[in-house]
Amino acid sequence: MLLELTVDLDAIVANWRMLHRMVAPAECAAVVKANAYGLGVERVAPELAAAGCATFFVATIDEGLQLRGLVPDAAIAVLAGPAGAEAEAESANLIPVLNSLEQVIAWGAWAARRAKMLPALLHLDTGMTRLGLEGTEIERLAADPALLAGIRPLVVMSHFACADEAGNAMNDRQVERFTRLAAGLPVAARRSLAASSGIFLGRHTHFDLVRPGAALYGLNPLPSATNPMAPVVRLTAEILQVRDVDTPMTVGYGASHRVAQPGRTATAAVGYADGYLRSLGNRGYGIIKGERVPVVGRISMDLTCFDVSALPAGSVAPGDRVELIGPGHGIDDLAAEAGTIGYEILTSLSHRATRRFVGGAA
Amino acid sequence: MLLELTVDLDAIVANWRMLHRMVAPAECAAVVKANAYGLGVERVAPELAAAGCATFFVATIDEGLQLRGLVPDAAIAVLAGPAGAEAEAESANLIPVLNSLEQVIAWGAWAARRAKMLPALLHLDTGMTRLGLEGTEIERLAADPALLAGIRPLVVMSHFACADEAGNAMNDRQVERFTRLAAGLPVAARRSLAASSGIFLGRHTHFDLVRPGAALYGLNPLPSATNPMAPVVRLTAEILQVRDVDTPMTVGYGASHRVAQPGRTATAAVGYADGYLRSLGNRGYGIIKGERVPVVGRISMDLTCFDVSALPAGSVAPGDRVELIGPGHGIDDLAAEAGTIGYEILTSLSHRATRRFVGGAA
Repeated sequence: MLLELTVDLDAIVANWRMLHRMVAPAECAAVVKANAYGLGVERVAPELAAAGCATFFVATIDEGLQLRGLVPDAAIAVLAGPAGAEAEAESANLIPVLNSLEQVIAWGAWAARRAKMLPALLHLDTGMTRLGLEGTEIERLAADPALLAGIRPLVVMSHFACADEAGNAMNDRQVERFTRLAAGLPVAARRSLAASSGIFLGRHTHFDLVRPGAALYGLNPLPSATNPMAPVVRLTAEILQVRDVDTPMTVGYGASHRVAQPGRTATAAVGYADGYLRSLGNRGYGIIKGERVPVVGRISMDLTCFDVSALPAGSVAPGDRVELIGPGHGIDDLAAEAGTIGYEILTSLSHRATRRFVGGAA
Repeated sequence: MLLELTVDLDAIVANWRMLHRMVAPAECAAVVKANAYGLGVERVAPELAAAGCATFFVATIDEGLQLRGLVPDAAIAVLAGPAGAEAEAESANLIPVLNSLEQVIAWGAWAARRAKMLPALLHLDTGMTRLGLEGTEIERLAADPALLAGIRPLVVMSHFACADEAGNAMNDRQVERFTRLAAGLPVAARRSLAASSGIFLGRHTHFDLVRPGAALYGLNPLPSATNPMAPVVRLTAEILQVRDVDTPMTVGYGASHRVAQPGRTATAAVGYADGYLRSLGNRGYGIIKGERVPVVGRISMDLTCFDVSALPAGSVAPGDRVELIGPGHGIDDLAAEAGTIGYEILTSLSHRATRRFVGGAA
C-alpha cells in the first residue's frame, strides 16, 4: 500500500452525536458535499443516517443524485440550487436551496408545470456576499408572496463569514440581520445559520437546524483552542528508499534544499498529485517512529523526501511508513505548514490513496 | 454543467508527434502517471498508442495495472519500482524501474523464483537525491554483476533536477554524470535522461529515449519563453448568481475583500474541492466574454466570486460561464497566480468536473 488513507467511521459518528446533543432540541444535519470532504460519501453518509441524521447537505444536483441512492429516506438539500436541473431534483426528491430570485422563479415555474407544491430552502445573504437572496429581493418576496406560489419553504438559512473568529463583531451583526430578514419573509419556516464553527459561538446561533461539515471529519472548529472533535483521518505513505546524503548534495527539483551536513533522507510515495500540497515543500513535517521528520526539497508529483537524520542509522528502511496525518500530526497542523486550512487538505486527498474504513455499523 | 473540463485529444497527439519528430531517431515515450496528469488516462493513453507511442510511464503498480487494460501491446514502465508487488508486475507485463539495490535484489529474487529473465529499467541518481541508485550501489553492481542475474535491463535512466532552467550549470553536470555512471554499469541498455523540459536543452540530452509528460498536456516546458506546445485544456464554471455590491460590503470568508465602490460580483460554481486552489483567493483571474475578471475574496470549497464590474451591467447573468483555463488564460498563467506550477494545477483538477473530450481517433 503505497499511500493509505484510514477513515474512522466511528469517530465521524461520535462527532455528529456530540454536536447533536450540544444543539438539541435544534436538529443536527450533516454536510457531505465534495464526497464527504474527500473521505468517501458512500461509507460516511449511511453511517450518519444509521446514527439518526435525517438531513444532509450537498453542493450540487449530481452529488444529490448520488447521495439519494445511499440514504433513501433522508432529506437532501442542494446548496447550489436547481441550476437548470429542476426535473432531476424533483425526481430524486432533492430539496434545492434557492439562492436568488431567479432560482425562486425557476423552481416556482417548475412547480406550476408539475401542478405540485415543491419543497425548498431559502438562502438569505447576511454578509458572505456569495450566494443568497439580497435585501431588495427579500423585499420583493415580502411585497409579492405570489412569487412563492407552489413552493413550500422548509427552512430559511444563511451562512457566517467569520464564525471561526469568536470575537469578530461581524458574527453578531449576521445573527441580528438573519433574524430580521427571516422575520420579514412571508413564510413560516424553520431557521438555520450555523455550520461547524458557528455552532460553538453559542446557543443563539443554533436556531432550528445546524449544518456541521468540517467538524464531523475532525477539523478543529475553534482554531485558537484545543480541538473538541475526535480525529478521523490517518494518512501514511510507504518509504521507497533511504539515502545517505552529504554536502554538496541538493535534494529535488530546483535543487532547493542544500544538504548542510552528513545525514539521511527517506523518499516516500506521496506527492502533490495525491493532494499533498506543493506548498509543503521545505515546510511540512511527517512522523516516523514517533520522530518529527521535516520535508526537504520540493514536493514532486508522486514523491516527497524527508530528512530522517534524527533517527538512528539503519532504523528506517524501505517499506516503513511515514505518517503524514495522524495522532502525532493532525490535519490542522499540516494545513498550517501548507499555509492553508484543513478543509483544503481534506478535499485535496486524491483518489490515488487506498482508503481503509475502520469502525462503522451501517 | 456546473464545471466543465474540456480535453483536446488531438492537441495531446499533436504535442506527442511534435516531440517525436524533434527527438528522432530517439524514441519518444509518454508519461501518463496520475491519471494522465488528471486529464483521464482512459482516453489519453489509447490515443497516444494509436499515434505510435510504444512506451508509457506510470508512477505505481496500480496505475500500471489499469493502463495494461488500455494499451495491451505497449511497454509500461513503473517509476516507483516493484515495491512488494512483484507478482502483479510480472503478471501484467509491467517493467519496474529499479531505484535502489534493494529493488534490484527483490526483482532478481522474483526472477530466480520464476526461473525467468525479467525486464527492468535501472534508475541512476545524478543529482535529484530522490530515487535512483547511488554511486556506491553502482560500484557494487559493477563489482558483482551476478546481482543482475535474471534481470534484463532495457533502459538505464536518470532525471534532471533543473531542466526548466536552461542556463543552470547543474544540467551539464547531470549529463556528464549520467554518461559516466551508465558507462560503468555491466549492462548493454538504452539510455534515457530527458523529460519535457530536458528535451529542449538540446540533442545531447535525448540519448535513446525521452519521457515527456507535462508538455504533452500543454504545459510550457520553457518557462521563460513562448510555449511551443498546443493548448489542451479548457476549464469553465457556471455562474450561479450576479450581485450588485457597494461599500461597506465584504465578500466571502474572513471578509477578506472589502468592496471599495459600487460594482457587481458573479459567484461561480468552482472551489478548492474542484482543485481551484485556495491560494487563488484575491489573486486569480477568470475570463468572461473576453474580459479579465479578478477573483474577489477567498476561494470557498464549492464557490468563487469574481469582480465583473468591468463588464456592462446586465451583460453577465446566471447560466453564463467563466473561463478559468483556456485560450485567454492558460494553465501556466493560473499557476503563476496561485504561486505554484502548472503541473499542480493539472493534477488537482478534481473528479467533480464533467470531462468533455474532443477530437481523437482511438
